[in-house]
Amino acid sequence: MSSWMKTAMRGALMLPLAGMAGLAAHAQEASAVSAYVDSSYLFLIGGLIVMFMAAGFLCLESGLVRSKNASMQSLKNVSLFSVAGLMFWLIGYNIAYPASTALGGIIGIPGAIPWSGEESLDTGYAASSDWFFQMVFVATAASIVSGTVAERVKLWSFLIFVVFLTAFIYPTVVSWEWGGGYLDSEWAFSDFAGSTLVHSTGGWAALVGAIIIGPRAGKYFGEKVNPMPGSNIPLAALGTFILWFGWFGFNGASQLAAGTFDDINAVAKIFANTNMAAVGGVLAAMILTAVLYKGKVDPTMAFNGAIGGLVSITAEPLAPSMGMSVAIGAVGGVLVVLTVPLLDKLKIDDVVGAIPAHLVCGIWGTLIVAASYGNHIMPPVDEAGALTGDASYVGQLVGIILTGVVVSVLSAIVWFALKATLGVRVSEEEEQLGLDRADTGVEAYPEFAS
Amino acid sequence: MSSWMKTAMRGALMLPLAGMAGLAAHAQEASAVSAYVDSSYLFLIGGLIVMFMAAGFLCLESGLVRSKNASMQSLKNVSLFSVAGLMFWLIGYNIAYPASTALGGIIGIPGAIPWSGEESLDTGYAASSDWFFQMVFVATAASIVSGTVAERVKLWSFLIFVVFLTAFIYPTVVSWEWGGGYLDSEWAFSDFAGSTLVHSTGGWAALVGAIIIGPRAGKYFGEKVNPMPGSNIPLAALGTFILWFGWFGFNGASQLAAGTFDDINAVAKIFANTNMAAVGGVLAAMILTAVLYKGKVDPTMAFNGAIGGLVSITAEPLAPSMGMSVAIGAVGGVLVVLTVPLLDKLKIDDVVGAIPAHLVCGIWGTLIVAASYGNHIMPPVDEAGALTGDASYVGQLVGIILTGVVVSVLSAIVWFALKATLGVRVSEEEEQLGLDRADTGVEAYPEFAS
Amino acid sequence: MSSWMKTAMRGALMLPLAGMAGLAAHAQEASAVSAYVDSSYLFLIGGLIVMFMAAGFLCLESGLVRSKNASMQSLKNVSLFSVAGLMFWLIGYNIAYPASTALGGIIGIPGAIPWSGEESLDTGYAASSDWFFQMVFVATAASIVSGTVAERVKLWSFLIFVVFLTAFIYPTVVSWEWGGGYLDSEWAFSDFAGSTLVHSTGGWAALVGAIIIGPRAGKYFGEKVNPMPGSNIPLAALGTFILWFGWFGFNGASQLAAGTFDDINAVAKIFANTNMAAVGGVLAAMILTAVLYKGKVDPTMAFNGAIGGLVSITAEPLAPSMGMSVAIGAVGGVLVVLTVPLLDKLKIDDVVGAIPAHLVCGIWGTLIVAASYGNHIMPPVDEAGALTGDASYVGQLVGIILTGVVVSVLSAIVWFALKATLGVRVSEEEEQLGLDRADTGVEAYPEFAS
Repeated sequence: MSSWMKTAMRGALMLPLAGMAGLAAHAQEASAVSAYVDSSYLFLIGGLIVMFMAAGFLCLESGLVRSKNASMQSLKNVSLFSVAGLMFWLIGYNIAYPASTALGGIIGIPGAIPWSGEESLDTGYAASSDWFFQMVFVATAASIVSGTVAERVKLWSFLIFVVFLTAFIYPTVVSWEWGGGYLDSEWAFSDFAGSTLVHSTGGWAALVGAIIIGPRAGKYFGEKVNPMPGSNIPLAALGTFILWFGWFGFNGASQLAAGTFDDINAVAKIFANTNMAAVGGVLAAMILTAVLYKGKVDPTMAFNGAIGGLVSITAEPLAPSMGMSVAIGAVGGVLVVLTVPLLDKLKIDDVVGAIPAHLVCGIWGTLIVAASYGNHIMPPVDEAGALTGDASYVGQLVGIILTGVVVSVLSAIVWFALKATLGVRVSEEEEQLGLDRADTGVEAYPEFAS
Repeated sequence: MSSWMKTAMRGALMLPLAGMAGLAAHAQEASAVSAYVDSSYLFLIGGLIVMFMAAGFLCLESGLVRSKNASMQSLKNVSLFSVAGLMFWLIGYNIAYPASTALGGIIGIPGAIPWSGEESLDTGYAASSDWFFQMVFVATAASIVSGTVAERVKLWSFLIFVVFLTAFIYPTVVSWEWGGGYLDSEWAFSDFAGSTLVHSTGGWAALVGAIIIGPRAGKYFGEKVNPMPGSNIPLAALGTFILWFGWFGFNGASQLAAGTFDDINAVAKIFANTNMAAVGGVLAAMILTAVLYKGKVDPTMAFNGAIGGLVSITAEPLAPSMGMSVAIGAVGGVLVVLTVPLLDKLKIDDVVGAIPAHLVCGIWGTLIVAASYGNHIMPPVDEAGALTGDASYVGQLVGIILTGVVVSVLSAIVWFALKATLGVRVSEEEEQLGLDRADTGVEAYPEFAS
Repeated sequence: MSSWMKTAMRGALMLPLAGMAGLAAHAQEASAVSAYVDSSYLFLIGGLIVMFMAAGFLCLESGLVRSKNASMQSLKNVSLFSVAGLMFWLIGYNIAYPASTALGGIIGIPGAIPWSGEESLDTGYAASSDWFFQMVFVATAASIVSGTVAERVKLWSFLIFVVFLTAFIYPTVVSWEWGGGYLDSEWAFSDFAGSTLVHSTGGWAALVGAIIIGPRAGKYFGEKVNPMPGSNIPLAALGTFILWFGWFGFNGASQLAAGTFDDINAVAKIFANTNMAAVGGVLAAMILTAVLYKGKVDPTMAFNGAIGGLVSITAEPLAPSMGMSVAIGAVGGVLVVLTVPLLDKLKIDDVVGAIPAHLVCGIWGTLIVAASYGNHIMPPVDEAGALTGDASYVGQLVGIILTGVVVSVLSAIVWFALKATLGVRVSEEEEQLGLDRADTGVEAYPEFAS
């Protein structure tokens, strides 16, 4: 065999192999970049859609307060979104996804203050896209509080509460589960997009706030409940649809990836289920309201029914069938209709109905996750005694209770500290006059209100 | 030749070939997955944008009714979207895309009730993403009806009508064309995103409803038309912009794919044309209004001009040039301005102007499709006598008429059945008092209205 | 060596190489198509998000005018968006991105009238997707003007001004920088998404208009400023959030590509920075307002603080850190709070505060770009004397001043020409009555306003 033949043959053997290895390596990196781009894109688009929920809360809350407080409620919604963004950058994000933990995963210890994301192909997504996506969730939790304590809480005290909620309280809860902490590792707690982590956290903070701040002046006389109807129902309805719209980002993008056959199927199923739960919530709330109130259908019950249905499916929007999603949402709608008068009985004044929709339905949605994973009572373990990762009723309940206790206690500390210092409540005169004229100097509808 | 040489040569021949075949197969599957992901993503994002049109209709309709009915109108919009979603899952989708057909493709026979999508790479998209995308279109058709019959239709009767519209009537019409049925196979009927299938269907149902239910009390005295101005024009304007926004999803995502050079170019052109048709509709309506009404420009004509322009381009948003799109939209705007007073002459009370914008412009837009395909009078056939698939004036007309007749007859049956049983209209007292106080117990603007 | 062996060996050598070359060529084209699709998709989605800012301006402006002009303000917003789209198709786009230039790059000479995009893989994106993305920016500039001159400008005169603004003035300014003209080539002027090109251009046109048209009747009595509070603050708040939402498209999609590791990281960082600048603007405006006005926080200052922060970061949303972005936005918020009363001192009546938010913050944001590129006083040059492309304070100032002078002069010519012919201002009687009743015949809130 001549020398050129040997060389040629080596070439014939090696060149294509080297080329193929090169191609394969190139393909592998291209695939990693492609997945990175897709996931980041999903976070940005999903986060943007969730960001718009801030406008939904604005509309819902401004529409459900009386006109004398609607300007202030608008301001609170714009400013709480700002405070949430600032604090989640300064502190919150690095507690939610901590560098290390203490107390068996209960407390997250941030790696750096403020957060300063560095991009790396290894993480699988652009750091800032994840920050953005997480940030709009914390803002959602804060929005829940503002609705409940509307019409009497002091602006700056409320914003300081939001500082603590978004810098410490919410991030701590999130670290237990999405940060891989205590609830995830010990209880296989499962909360896909945040029925408990986001909605119940906001709901508990709102409940404790409503109790500590007290009801609006004139709301309760003995056993009598004085209705204080919202000033702009179409605006509240718009807010409901904006929230519904935003929820597709909330639940859909929580799949965290959409670039593969399985992931895009999951996102699509989440979209369908999310819609069906809202559908169930609206229709159940309407029918029950008609039955309970002699055929009259309070639109705000339908709106909160939609929200209640959406919160209910948020803990597990992927596993249920569409029929099951309707049912889960319908129970949420029923819970809303039943809980609203209950709170009034307890003289807890929740101006927009956030506690029924976000807290009560958040608990329901979180519990029922176990039904999608085999109805286990206790977290199932494999032969080696390790958690299989499947949700269980007790595991879910532990997460619900732990969140409830910790958020309530921490919130109470902050609300009481504010009460003892700045005060949490405007003066009787201010409340009577309306926060718009008293504290902003700008009436919401200066030419309309009587 | 030694044995190792033979082996080596076989390797040199086979290995790269096998590798290449593997790579090619891998590339082919990757490409199929990629297209699947892209299409599904387009359906989800597009569907989400269209879903938001529900908020647009809410704003438009709540803004154009009198304040005493605005709360009810909000409730109707939220609840019709819920009913539409429920029925299109239970029945509608599988009639629109039937397992088999009867009567020569006129009736679709659903394969399963309720719909239960299974994901397969072969379909080219996630089943649930398609369901979601289709579902928001059916909701659009229902929204059209609610505006026309506002301020006097009974809530539950209206919702029952929506049940039939979204479960049977709309799906049947859709099956003729998008489901590959009668109009598609026999007449080469062409309706890209639904000028006829969605907008005229809604419009016919609304027209028949308006006639059967009758005008609002006090609207017509002999020849005199009593104007009943909308209560919140900025809200109606916002609704118009939301609809305009949503229409990019409506038309753009109806390209059904965006992952190739040709597809993305098509989507881009659809965006540009869709916008130009709205532009033409607004400006033509404004100019004509100014001419007809001594320089005064009724903003609601401009808003309906935008919608009319958008409906007009919906049947064929891809083929026309941008200039042609302006013209098509402008004719739509003119039709709106001319049809609104015509309906009043006929004492057909269309509260928000949905019949001019959706029905009349839907007919116009569907007819003019033939101009983009060679102005054929009859559906052209090839040498073998088979349809070439190009639209023709007669083919379009058949679709328009068939849709009109079938939707009108079926709608009339449902409306008359409701009239004979539950009643379709609130009592005179309720209408006088306003549906908000009479039927919801919640006024839209309790502190403002005089 | 037998003949078959030679052939086999040639095959072994050639086949894989040819295959690989084919694969590589295929991969290269696939990659070009993929980038083309990604960029076009980004333009369409980004443009759609920016398009929705039209709804934001509608809400903000309709909410900040008095109720007697809110219907007209709604109409102006819908119609200006239409005129902008029409003129940017007819003339504007091809001036902004001209076929050739005159006067050293100051004047762009359009290649064709009207624009008629042709798709080519070489451009890197679908022509219509770029047109759409650019068109929504020009509409933004026009929206800025409509807010300032609200409540007294004549509808048709305003729309004719918009014709000139969107067909000639804005496109000329854009050609200097994004079209590669004078400012880009001579001064290394840097304006990422348009603090100067879009926002200051709109702001200068608005300022000149406000001066020429004059303040609203009764606004200024000697030194006294008569407050004319907005009629619907929650609507203005919703507008603020819609603008905030839209700004992610405005800045994010201005990266122009998102398909690579670096590009998606850039888009993600732009999202985070854009949000932080708004946060800084809101909180700085609120704190400063509370300090200046005895604890009262005017919500409209917070809203304009958000917008001011967003405008400030628009010239360079990528380079700054998140902390720096907060600071840049905070200065914007401070500028808004300080400039609003200053304009009143000068008796320049800017109804919605657009000049502080868009013009003043646009100047600030453009200047501070130099801080992100080494704080050069003069545009740095390399050894060969060519511009390095880095922004400098003088380079930025030249762009700011050139834009200010040219836009002001051209705007003044158009406004004066209109004043001398059609008139720019409604009659005193019409202004007193309100433009809604006088010029549209349709009141915004016929049942509410006193």
